[in-house]
Amino acid sequence: MKTHAVAGALSSLLLGAPLARAEEGMWTFNRFPIDRLERALGLKIDEAWLDHVRLASARLAQGCSASFVSPDGLVMTNQHCVNDCVQELSTAKKDLVADGYSAKTQADELRCTNLEVNRLVGMTDVTPRVMKAAEGKSDADANEAKKAEMSRIEKECATSDAVRCDVVTLYNGGVYDLYRYERMQDVRLAFAPELAIAFVGGDPDNFMFPRHDLDVAFVRVYQNDKPAKVEHWFGWSPAGTKEGDVTFVSGHPGSTSRLQTVAELEFWRDTGLLPRLLYLSEMRGMLVEYARRGKEQARHSKGLLFGIENYLKKLKGEAQALFQPALLQAKRITERALRDKVLADKAMGAKFGGAWDTISKAVAKASDIVDRHAMLELAAGFGCDLFDFARTLVRAADEIPKPNDKRLREFSDGRLPALQMALFAKSPVTPELEILRLSFGLSKLREALGPDDALVMEVLGNAAPDQLAARVVKGSKLGDPKVRKQLYESGAAGIAASKDPMIVLAKLVDAPARAVRKRMEDEIEAPIKKGHELIAQARFGLEGTSSYPDATFTLRLSYGAVKGWQEGGRTIAPYTTFGSTFDRHTGADPFALPKSWLAKKGELDFATPMNFVTTNDIIGGNSGSPVIDRDKRIVGLIFDGNIHMLGGDYGFDPALNRAVAVDSRAILYALDKVYGATRLVAEIRAASQR
Amino acid sequence: MKTHAVAGALSSLLLGAPLARAEEGMWTFNRFPIDRLERALGLKIDEAWLDHVRLASARLAQGCSASFVSPDGLVMTNQHCVNDCVQELSTAKKDLVADGYSAKTQADELRCTNLEVNRLVGMTDVTPRVMKAAEGKSDADANEAKKAEMSRIEKECATSDAVRCDVVTLYNGGVYDLYRYERMQDVRLAFAPELAIAFVGGDPDNFMFPRHDLDVAFVRVYQNDKPAKVEHWFGWSPAGTKEGDVTFVSGHPGSTSRLQTVAELEFWRDTGLLPRLLYLSEMRGMLVEYARRGKEQARHSKGLLFGIENYLKKLKGEAQALFQPALLQAKRITERALRDKVLADKAMGAKFGGAWDTISKAVAKASDIVDRHAMLELAAGFGCDLFDFARTLVRAADEIPKPNDKRLREFSDGRLPALQMALFAKSPVTPELEILRLSFGLSKLREALGPDDALVMEVLGNAAPDQLAARVVKGSKLGDPKVRKQLYESGAAGIAASKDPMIVLAKLVDAPARAVRKRMEDEIEAPIKKGHELIAQARFGLEGTSSYPDATFTLRLSYGAVKGWQEGGRTIAPYTTFGSTFDRHTGADPFALPKSWLAKKGELDFATPMNFVTTNDIIGGNSGSPVIDRDKRIVGLIFDGNIHMLGGDYGFDPALNRAVAVDSRAILYALDKVYGATRLVAEIRAASQR
Repeated sequence: MKTHAVAGALSSLLLGAPLARAEEGMWTFNRFPIDRLERALGLKIDEAWLDHVRLASARLAQGCSASFVSPDGLVMTNQHCVNDCVQELSTAKKDLVADGYSAKTQADELRCTNLEVNRLVGMTDVTPRVMKAAEGKSDADANEAKKAEMSRIEKECATSDAVRCDVVTLYNGGVYDLYRYERMQDVRLAFAPELAIAFVGGDPDNFMFPRHDLDVAFVRVYQNDKPAKVEHWFGWSPAGTKEGDVTFVSGHPGSTSRLQTVAELEFWRDTGLLPRLLYLSEMRGMLVEYARRGKEQARHSKGLLFGIENYLKKLKGEAQALFQPALLQAKRITERALRDKVLADKAMGAKFGGAWDTISKAVAKASDIVDRHAMLELAAGFGCDLFDFARTLVRAADEIPKPNDKRLREFSDGRLPALQMALFAKSPVTPELEILRLSFGLSKLREALGPDDALVMEVLGNAAPDQLAARVVKGSKLGDPKVRKQLYESGAAGIAASKDPMIVLAKLVDAPARAVRKRMEDEIEAPIKKGHELIAQARFGLEGTSSYPDATFTLRLSYGAVKGWQEGGRTIAPYTTFGSTFDRHTGADPFALPKSWLAKKGELDFATPMNFVTTNDIIGGNSGSPVIDRDKRIVGLIFDGNIHMLGGDYGFDPALNRAVAVDSRAILYALDKVYGATRLVAEIRAASQR
Repeated sequence: MKTHAVAGALSSLLLGAPLARAEEGMWTFNRFPIDRLERALGLKIDEAWLDHVRLASARLAQGCSASFVSPDGLVMTNQHCVNDCVQELSTAKKDLVADGYSAKTQADELRCTNLEVNRLVGMTDVTPRVMKAAEGKSDADANEAKKAEMSRIEKECATSDAVRCDVVTLYNGGVYDLYRYERMQDVRLAFAPELAIAFVGGDPDNFMFPRHDLDVAFVRVYQNDKPAKVEHWFGWSPAGTKEGDVTFVSGHPGSTSRLQTVAELEFWRDTGLLPRLLYLSEMRGMLVEYARRGKEQARHSKGLLFGIENYLKKLKGEAQALFQPALLQAKRITERALRDKVLADKAMGAKFGGAWDTISKAVAKASDIVDRHAMLELAAGFGCDLFDFARTLVRAADEIPKPNDKRLREFSDGRLPALQMALFAKSPVTPELEILRLSFGLSKLREALGPDDALVMEVLGNAAPDQLAARVVKGSKLGDPKVRKQLYESGAAGIAASKDPMIVLAKLVDAPARAVRKRMEDEIEAPIKKGHELIAQARFGLEGTSSYPDATFTLRLSYGAVKGWQEGGRTIAPYTTFGSTFDRHTGADPFALPKSWLAKKGELDFATPMNFVTTNDIIGGNSGSPVIDRDKRIVGLIFDGNIHMLGGDYGFDPALNRAVAVDSRAILYALDKVYGATRLVAEIRAASQR
């Protein structure tokens, strides 16, 4: 057929298709294709292998991956995953982000008040129960009923604060799995290198392999003020990898859109991307200039700037993929093929044939409210930490008194421990930066909704955004975690009585924000979910669960190999070395190596591998994932992808997509030779022997 | 036919089509459709009418429109068109932008060293001569040959520095007309109101009618140090307009893309728009924060910020139009229809049928070099005034010794007076802001070409963008117009010997910049021009010159009427008043009226019309255009369009597109009652009697 001929020509773009290519796939551990792996690589793994890898893997609840590397709760992740904590532990006098930190003794390990480590201890399919709750209901009511049922299931499961339970939506609504995590909230910093070596090349090099970064950090999980004992951890590979070696990545990819329909992708391309790109670009320019106010301002705004630049690059990568006509054209063809198959069967056609139109219609409606939703409910129109605290406090007072299954999902009992941790964390809040951010948010609010919008007029009154932001931030006491705790415990009466100007602002905005959220959930989200549920069922009917679900910040395993790639007539080699790292040094930020490295330059073996690339299928959220060999031993640490990986949101191209990792040999060698972190080196070596 | 049925349904988008709707069209004065106007409005104008209007109209060479309003060389335009001059005349102690300026006597009128007024005194068709020069040549050579011939024609025409001659490309290459202008370079500021009333609502209100702005300024043209005597000027209408009245706009729309092919529009949508939007957004954020460094920084960066915000809104408007599938769909249909007509005739098909593919192929090639071209040749990678001066000086030394017709076009003899005026203008250059801009430019250069690009490495060396920018700006003497004049006159030897670091930078970049310009001209521009020339000839063959050419910053006449519009179920009334202007006052910038207005509030007639909208077809560059009635009398002053006007780049929708003008009654009333500018009021009134 003609469509298939074209599909063949575009095959490198046909992703999320049932027969995924060798390396493609972010597989769940309970539906891992053991046979497929054996066929592809001649390598047989078993359930015990999978269980060990899963239980030695970890997640930082704030949005990264990690792994246990010793029986004493030592956890490896990226410096950039714990940068917020390192910044939180810094002061104007002692800048641990710039200087790095290495705890000489265990007693020197420093508490990160906003870090939570999760370990996935169980998975149960709860699809029938969730589906049953929605039976016979309208789309909007079904959506509500499912959420309520998910909250009930989570509450039943979360028997203590040490357990976190999430009902996870997989295959865009085709499957609901209950994920049970061990939750560890006492996390302490053991080692982080200087930012200058963790992030060599800064934003210019980010996502642009070759890279030369020691983006590693070690934290330790404590229980009862003692290092937590764990039964599963990864040992170090004695030899590391060479080109062509098989690699596994076990981590938590955050989100992909490979199963989205063409209508959804076009909507994101035409309506969603641009406002976000412009918002972030403007914020970036503002922060770069803000940092010039002084050294202290540069220090306290750096983490925020990196986050924005990172997200900007991710969105630019998505834009690059979506503005290539080939990608959407290929998606159109696969979508058409699936629809045709469904329609070819009368019963399936009747049941599932309308699913795509259901989604298209909902998407078309979204353009009316998407800006308002982003500004009010996603709080882009306020955009600062203090407002987020205030919003949480105001809503907690409303929501917590309700029955668990009637609350907004983020206030359900199963979620409260993480919410409280974030709310009461001791992370410093900088009023000067908060004023900048709130002023920016307010100016965007006015820009998006117009100066004549009733809410904009009510919010701003006769003030300019700068004036209002200064007044509200300076008047607010919410920067103090004790004040937040008091207010949280004071309940609805306390919030109603509060004159804190940030609370007052959050109260003013709350009803309109909830209103637009409700519209978004009932009119857009509900039919889209319904449509996807039908598509997933149709696909299961035709193909079974032979494919993997889109990423959802849940644990996934991908397999691949160490391999460079070809581009623009050039071959990009898979490894960089200590030598090429020193070549990158110009002396000017972000290409200036730290003093510690420059001092040891003469003593280091320049041939030591620094970073390498693999064909593993990853996406944002995989940062901090261990790269392991077939024997479950650490050979690397994911910290980046190449620029093509960003388009991986929509599909995987084995010729171009690459994961980027710190080499395990670089980590141990630098800990030993550059940092003299003999305590950790000994611990890791000992753990590798057991 | 099916295509025509669809075209009918999309009729409001079918623009640039041969049978333009009543109001559509930016007509040239030498091909004005007198009969068509008579049929549409029952109004008969003649050549004398057209000649008078043309000769009383004017252009600010820097990019705005204007008109003569007295026999003593008094010229009316917008405050925002002369804002650069007003800023140039300001100091830290006397901020004329904020405070406004009103010359009590003629002797108080202040010279604007960077303003040139042009009046169109002749138009000649030189198409055959230009075409002949290119006969039998390849696309790239033909492109070169035409440019050389244009330079020759211009040189023959420009018999003195008081004459400016431009060969203008119309119908994207279908017609070449020689435009002869009277050039007036001694221009002095007579009146400008406070920015707070010229730009009420600032960026939030820009392009968002209803508006309430007294965006007017008066300058006077001098000859031999005396007010220039002119024979053509516009008198003031005694009564102004009412809803439904016919209006003409005579001005200089800058650029439209209505005749571009679908391939060109898609390229702009997918490749051109986004990088520009992101660049400008980031620069905007940086400038907003830069202005917080202090009052003086806010003052000297304000004009730049407004320019960026204005351009950003324009590009957002274009994005909004191009991301609507309907617009491109309609374009596809009209394009297909024209191609089909061409192909239906064998001879035409053979000659013109390949034109569209020629363009598509050239456009496809552009993506390889468009970023490099923007960064190096358009100097986005440097982005500051001092670099622009240096570039001009370096190239002038290379170009001017060449024969006129071998030079880059901007250095041809006909263009040198304007170039010298800009180069030697006394406009102050602020090193602090220049450092910011250059640093930003350099960081974008590195971002666009990558840190490993050979030129980027050569430019930056071991420095960060901030460091290099500070060093180069602080070391450069080019801020001094006398130094620039000296260097200009020192010729190639002087430039070669110069150690000024900005000159050194410009020399370093010049060869790569010229190389990418040459590729752009030979490989992209030449075939695109060839294709358009063929399309234009095909269209003339089929339809004659019954349509108008795309805007090219040449004088055009459009006709329309005072008329509001319907949108989202609301009716937007055509007039605002002094009353609604006071309603807009909140007290906070940009919604704070100036003291002068607040002081007179009690004495003013609130019913006085302030701004109004018409259906005239305008675009950026029309700012400052007179709005005149059928009797050639001033009834308003264009300063803005509504948000739909921005999509007018691609087509005109009579239901939605609106031009926005200051009411002539507001101007005289405010001059008189608010500013006591009795001298100007008397001059305008007297001129209206003659």
